[in-house]
Amino acid sequence: MIGEIVCVGTELLLGQITNTDARFVAERLAELGIDVYFQQVVGDNRDRLAAALRLALGRSDLVVTCGGLGPTEDDLTKETVGEVLGVPLVHEPAVADRITCLLERHGSQVLSRAVAKQALVLEGARILPNAAGTAPGLLVSKGGKHVALLPGPPAELEPMVRDHLGPALRALTAAEGRAASFLRTRVVKLCGLGEPAVEEAVRDLIHSANPSVAPLVTVGETHLRVTAKAPSQAEARALVEGMVAAVEERLRSHIFGYDSETIAEACGKRLRARGVTLALAESLTGGLVGHLLTEVPGSSEYFERGFVVYSNQAKTQLLGVGEELLSRYGAVSEEVALAMARGARQSAGTSLGLALTGIAGPDGGSEAKPVGLVYIAISDEASLGPTEACWRHVFSGERGLVKQRAAHRSLVRLWEWLG
Amino acid sequence: MIGEIVCVGTELLLGQITNTDARFVAERLAELGIDVYFQQVVGDNRDRLAAALRLALGRSDLVVTCGGLGPTEDDLTKETVGEVLGVPLVHEPAVADRITCLLERHGSQVLSRAVAKQALVLEGARILPNAAGTAPGLLVSKGGKHVALLPGPPAELEPMVRDHLGPALRALTAAEGRAASFLRTRVVKLCGLGEPAVEEAVRDLIHSANPSVAPLVTVGETHLRVTAKAPSQAEARALVEGMVAAVEERLRSHIFGYDSETIAEACGKRLRARGVTLALAESLTGGLVGHLLTEVPGSSEYFERGFVVYSNQAKTQLLGVGEELLSRYGAVSEEVALAMARGARQSAGTSLGLALTGIAGPDGGSEAKPVGLVYIAISDEASLGPTEACWRHVFSGERGLVKQRAAHRSLVRLWEWLG
Repeated sequence: MIGEIVCVGTELLLGQITNTDARFVAERLAELGIDVYFQQVVGDNRDRLAAALRLALGRSDLVVTCGGLGPTEDDLTKETVGEVLGVPLVHEPAVADRITCLLERHGSQVLSRAVAKQALVLEGARILPNAAGTAPGLLVSKGGKHVALLPGPPAELEPMVRDHLGPALRALTAAEGRAASFLRTRVVKLCGLGEPAVEEAVRDLIHSANPSVAPLVTVGETHLRVTAKAPSQAEARALVEGMVAAVEERLRSHIFGYDSETIAEACGKRLRARGVTLALAESLTGGLVGHLLTEVPGSSEYFERGFVVYSNQAKTQLLGVGEELLSRYGAVSEEVALAMARGARQSAGTSLGLALTGIAGPDGGSEAKPVGLVYIAISDEASLGPTEACWRHVFSGERGLVKQRAAHRSLVRLWEWLG
Repeated sequence: MIGEIVCVGTELLLGQITNTDARFVAERLAELGIDVYFQQVVGDNRDRLAAALRLALGRSDLVVTCGGLGPTEDDLTKETVGEVLGVPLVHEPAVADRITCLLERHGSQVLSRAVAKQALVLEGARILPNAAGTAPGLLVSKGGKHVALLPGPPAELEPMVRDHLGPALRALTAAEGRAASFLRTRVVKLCGLGEPAVEEAVRDLIHSANPSVAPLVTVGETHLRVTAKAPSQAEARALVEGMVAAVEERLRSHIFGYDSETIAEACGKRLRARGVTLALAESLTGGLVGHLLTEVPGSSEYFERGFVVYSNQAKTQLLGVGEELLSRYGAVSEEVALAMARGARQSAGTSLGLALTGIAGPDGGSEAKPVGLVYIAISDEASLGPTEACWRHVFSGERGLVKQRAAHRSLVRLWEWLG
């Protein structure tokens, strides 16, 4: 079965709100094995909505509309779907009673015109109850095409899809024998290797159709999304796992996690497994690395403390970074980064010290030390005596992005160090 | 001028990511007075992308594509736009040089095939520089139609639109004399007052049609979005400013900023205006408050250092929090929060100390001290001798949200303290 999502609302076209409905519905349709090739967004305008619906019905079996079911004159979805499908609107007394009751219970004003408008349903449609608002959803079928009408507010749409539309569509596809297919997805997360290199390593796999392998890039990470479609969940899972194993075989040393796992969680796992503790010394990131590490429940087991040494004085007083080092090499230098990592580790009495110093911008850069220049250092007490390392990076982007990239890369370095 | 947005990416159709690009571009086009009647989303499929582009070009003067400019074989936008418009792709050596240089500076592998693909541009197109990544944007015109091609990652798309596409489109609409009405929006940002109270204060204004006033709630803040439409930018601006003044008159003491201003920026302004310096002592937030404060350029003028005292030992060693205080009241207590703020201020030699201690969860809560319990304390040297204050909060939500709410609230407290 081929589905299409049509979101209705001028506020979407004006960019006043983000279209989270489209994402939510798309994810559910994918889970149900319904293929979606197009989404459309259209304003509160009858002619243009009708054009969008005709286009969608011409190329898809199921059209899901989001928005335009409210009580105001702007809300045109029911009327327009009725016109395009040739299905009349009829008054549904049970819906009117429920809305009146709901409004009275909330102490809201009951406007009979608004109630009457919301109580109109497409003849023969199945009513999808709205647990969080007044407008019911509808599912109507004609000539082999199906249209589901959902309210726009996510708080109303999401439970309606979960509790009513999802099961209805599952029954529909089963009855038509048309989604005898289940979708299963797993995301393999890699770091320390750019997207082109990752793609190079799995180029032949990317050409596979089922399971499919798609690369996706985020700040400092490359993800491979493995998706399979099969007549049963077990088969879909087996297909995905087979492909994940193939990816693992080629890129194992760069895989830090799967699905929603973060690099901070991956670091936490390795710190815990090795029974070591960590202290941070952050300059340009201002505490971001500590924030990321402490997003992980239980991080207090290995994260002991952090020093946000924004001033040179703080670097000297808290970490013992020599004043002559600062004046000779500057705060953004390999020498100072290493002294910070060492100082953090020694002052905190931890096994490891991780330090970052750099220029986040927009000011403070020079030709020799441009904005985006960052030194990341690790100091490790290690069993055979202390070892340490420092890496130099130049990150592009604005201040916030430089901070994010630096913080992320420091966690990658830490994860690799512990590998 | 009529515009249309076409977002390209199978991950959007599968609901794997939220379409924030569409919102960002839509908002900018509205500001430029370009009417948008339709948005489309299509996957990484050449035929369907071509169909979407033909449809858009048939009904719109300007088509903005988002996504599909990357180096992989999935990325088809340039090739497909070229095919639909009948414009060939040509190799642009300057782009290739820049990409190679960028990759080398990052220490990334340079794959000549990937560079060559990204260095292909549509003949005659204007190149829109990418400040945060490798793929340049393009703006190409043919037969009275314009197509702007933007990269998908928001970190790359947003500065490109702001710095390059926006000005180019402004020149274009001016030259063609085709922007009939201008939209102007201003967001008034409030804190320390819940949405119902804000709405109550401006209830009559919310019923206005042009300019319109719409409330919007985010973590710890209420925003009022004021929007006006007028035949000239000056008139739209005047309408907005009149309404903003009316809001200010009623709610001035709760307004911390406008548009993209953050509470951290508002704190920075007050710290700078008063010529005071700040030290932080963070426990449950792990560095998040420092991160937020240092997102603001120039924050080193007032932010001296931060202590991320995750362990009790760190609280004692770095901030002088007495061990008997910790054992008597526990690390999450008013007494310890105040001692942390005092210790941070004194140790750093700053005017102010801001401290947070709490239970982020999911574990560690009890009946007396539930998950979400947070103490926020301020210690101020003040001119008439030290003053201090502590507030107790219980935040709902999961670990990440508790951290965010606590960090945000601490900045609100700081901003109010400096008021």
